[in-house]
Amino acid sequence: MTSSRHSSSALTTDLYEVTMACGYWKAGVSDHEAAFHVTFRENPFGGGFTVACGLATAIDFLRTFHFTETQIDYLASQNGNDGRRLFDSSFLDHLRSLRPTCDIDAIPEGTLVFPNEPLIRVCGPIIQCQLLETALLNILNFESLIATKAARVCVAASNDPVIEFGLRRAQGVDGGLTAARAAYIGGCAGTSNLQAGERFGIPVSGTQAHSWIMFFENESEAFHEYANAMPNNCVFLVDTYTSLEGVRRAINVARQLRKEGQEMIGVRLDSGDRVALSIDARRMLDEAGFTNAKLVCSGDLDEHIVVQMKERGAKIDIWGVGTKLTTGQPDGALGGIYKLGAVRRPGARWEYRIKLSDEPEKTSCPGLLQVRRFYQPDGRFVADAIYEIDHAISYPCIIVDLQTEEETEIPSKMEDSDLLVPIFRGGEPVYQPPKIEVSREHARKQLNCAPPEILRLKDPKGYKIGLEKSLHHLRSILIARQGTMQ
Amino acid sequence: MTSSRHSSSALTTDLYEVTMACGYWKAGVSDHEAAFHVTFRENPFGGGFTVACGLATAIDFLRTFHFTETQIDYLASQNGNDGRRLFDSSFLDHLRSLRPTCDIDAIPEGTLVFPNEPLIRVCGPIIQCQLLETALLNILNFESLIATKAARVCVAASNDPVIEFGLRRAQGVDGGLTAARAAYIGGCAGTSNLQAGERFGIPVSGTQAHSWIMFFENESEAFHEYANAMPNNCVFLVDTYTSLEGVRRAINVARQLRKEGQEMIGVRLDSGDRVALSIDARRMLDEAGFTNAKLVCSGDLDEHIVVQMKERGAKIDIWGVGTKLTTGQPDGALGGIYKLGAVRRPGARWEYRIKLSDEPEKTSCPGLLQVRRFYQPDGRFVADAIYEIDHAISYPCIIVDLQTEEETEIPSKMEDSDLLVPIFRGGEPVYQPPKIEVSREHARKQLNCAPPEILRLKDPKGYKIGLEKSLHHLRSILIARQGTMQ
Repeated sequence: MTSSRHSSSALTTDLYEVTMACGYWKAGVSDHEAAFHVTFRENPFGGGFTVACGLATAIDFLRTFHFTETQIDYLASQNGNDGRRLFDSSFLDHLRSLRPTCDIDAIPEGTLVFPNEPLIRVCGPIIQCQLLETALLNILNFESLIATKAARVCVAASNDPVIEFGLRRAQGVDGGLTAARAAYIGGCAGTSNLQAGERFGIPVSGTQAHSWIMFFENESEAFHEYANAMPNNCVFLVDTYTSLEGVRRAINVARQLRKEGQEMIGVRLDSGDRVALSIDARRMLDEAGFTNAKLVCSGDLDEHIVVQMKERGAKIDIWGVGTKLTTGQPDGALGGIYKLGAVRRPGARWEYRIKLSDEPEKTSCPGLLQVRRFYQPDGRFVADAIYEIDHAISYPCIIVDLQTEEETEIPSKMEDSDLLVPIFRGGEPVYQPPKIEVSREHARKQLNCAPPEILRLKDPKGYKIGLEKSLHHLRSILIARQGTMQ
Repeated sequence: MTSSRHSSSALTTDLYEVTMACGYWKAGVSDHEAAFHVTFRENPFGGGFTVACGLATAIDFLRTFHFTETQIDYLASQNGNDGRRLFDSSFLDHLRSLRPTCDIDAIPEGTLVFPNEPLIRVCGPIIQCQLLETALLNILNFESLIATKAARVCVAASNDPVIEFGLRRAQGVDGGLTAARAAYIGGCAGTSNLQAGERFGIPVSGTQAHSWIMFFENESEAFHEYANAMPNNCVFLVDTYTSLEGVRRAINVARQLRKEGQEMIGVRLDSGDRVALSIDARRMLDEAGFTNAKLVCSGDLDEHIVVQMKERGAKIDIWGVGTKLTTGQPDGALGGIYKLGAVRRPGARWEYRIKLSDEPEKTSCPGLLQVRRFYQPDGRFVADAIYEIDHAISYPCIIVDLQTEEETEIPSKMEDSDLLVPIFRGGEPVYQPPKIEVSREHARKQLNCAPPEILRLKDPKGYKIGLEKSLHHLRSILIARQGTMQ
């Protein structure tokens, strides 16, 4: 067994979550309920969509959440600015026995989501909601970022397989592992990362590096030795010295292999003008009778380069994409936030909460939120309404754009469904995360059913999304009241 | 105990490392020795320096490197394109008992390093060198990226403390943990990340989020409740509604606290025009008699914004820097590579190896490399020579710039020292990584002893670095020979 999938624990959090937890506890309000949502304000990469990802990882974190004795001891050792203990022992005793009892709803992995939609809703004692914040944000932000990047690269590659190659440049060992998982859900066909292969069952691929070629006296010897040793895994890396000479030598070895009953899988182009090289290499391979040999392209790729290379006529069959996919460049982070929507004293009703901002669209949404998605008869989805669960949608549903305040009426005859599904009830899991292939297939179907204009890599059209009218009204009232009160 | 520090294992690698390993083994050359180096071609962030980091993490990985039975079973299950096993059982038996026996030299953490310098040299059986590649690159690339970013933010902040706040946007749980470590070595004063505090002994800080303020009926109540609960940890977050009103309310609570014998630590500004707000807040605090109260600034900061805010007269005492520090934006990755410098058959001499490239400066360096650094009498360092360890430097040392081929003679009277130190000999550790505070102090001293013009955040002057003349000569010969041979 390799070590645990990720090193998350109850200490995967910011100190302020625990000081606030202590504060709620000492103020006698730690069992008051709260409703928080993880949302984000912009799709990453200037794109028109985001692929929700990370829920299975988050569920692992939530199911095992507890403070160990070592962690309690560590917290007990923390001092305030007067040199005295920050946390008293009765609070730490409380933490020691704390297990999540929250109701949690979330959008399944692979679903296309849009700005301001809650990816997850956490309802429960405020002390718990607070302690879960940082890890939930970390997990959902990162995996959704990478799944989205992978989906973009796969859109660019049309139907060609894309392999995730980025472990060596990933943000840590676990960064590479987690990115491989998210990239697979986002549409990648495989990864070079063996740990990801073992842990998640993702198909792995890889053959040889420049060092193999350089180790031997010359390239022909290197190819021959590789073919002798690994006859059923022959992709020859041809650019160590001169790419087209490399292709010629690979063909010679492939002929020998074929006599022995084996087929070369293909050749890999890793540098130079890979459009021109791929055209020449394709011709050479075809002329030599290797029409099924694949051309693999790697080296500093992203969705934009893939599109450009295809436009220029590149004859590439498989794309190996590393750094920019695995680290989600150029964004590097999805800016997910965790905002309080409502609080409830024991036995009382929900009180809505709002966070104001100078930028009106940054003002948060009050309440317990859900997303209803509307579909055409052919299964294509066309609009989402964010609504408050105690304010039933009246039909025809009217949604209000958060930025423009423009109203749109959704035709009544549309099919609809709610995106957030129950994950935990009273802290008990009520949702079995699907297998990773199922989430990947879900993402693929979502991309197929999305309005094509939101999938454009540059200047996509915005998806039609808004606050359901009664939620928008509630939010306006709270904005006015908060402005007066403060 | 929290779970293991990182989830690296022998499977933290790309499949091609193992197919090559199998190839060497089947070709009967797996015990031939090789020398590899991790180098990078450009300083990150357009800067003039890089802070070496990750060695302690790499040592952890190397000391525990082995394939488990589960991992062997996983490898045994992989098939080639003919549907048969990729790896035969005798190779897998070999892996099962494989333990590193390499000689490894590296540059200690916190040292300033420059393009083309080897961060680490791995000498040993080619099969081992290959299996270690991906994890070493992953670890050194990521930690050096973040340590460098942290050093840049700390340079920008002059003597103000910088706190790493980025866990929620980090690339995975371990990404946040590892980034906190590297950021501390790079100069940060602390982190918000409790797991990093517990694991590495890094000072932690944090008080309250907007959710604390929003939970209560109004801001005054929220501040009072916090002060009651956590009187020795009071930094009030003042921007939930209106920042300067928040400062006024914080002052009221601070007066109450003072009567009770406690001091407010300060206030935190998280949005708005924080330059203007800090000037007003400073005046308000001073006039109210809270001259020691700190102003903490957070929200989308990086080294450039810190510099701009200081130039505009911001009265900030402590900088909380999150996303862009913790994910190393805008670069997101250091482009470290692992290149073969030489091979040696049993009983024979080293044969040098070189990888050609259309871009001359991308052609690799042959041999077993070391870096000699030259110092002025006052301890400032002025130049580095990369040399081949079997080609002794003759004095006066002449270095040749890789791009311009310009020669520079280092004055003979200078002090010098070699940067790579022995880490493993025959697989046995011979180096005890210093405590994290020692590496942090080393980085601080290195920054103090560097030519100031290389520390500029924009358009820094390049550090004087080159190949020692006999290495440059050796490289030229190999370039010519390789060009003829291929």
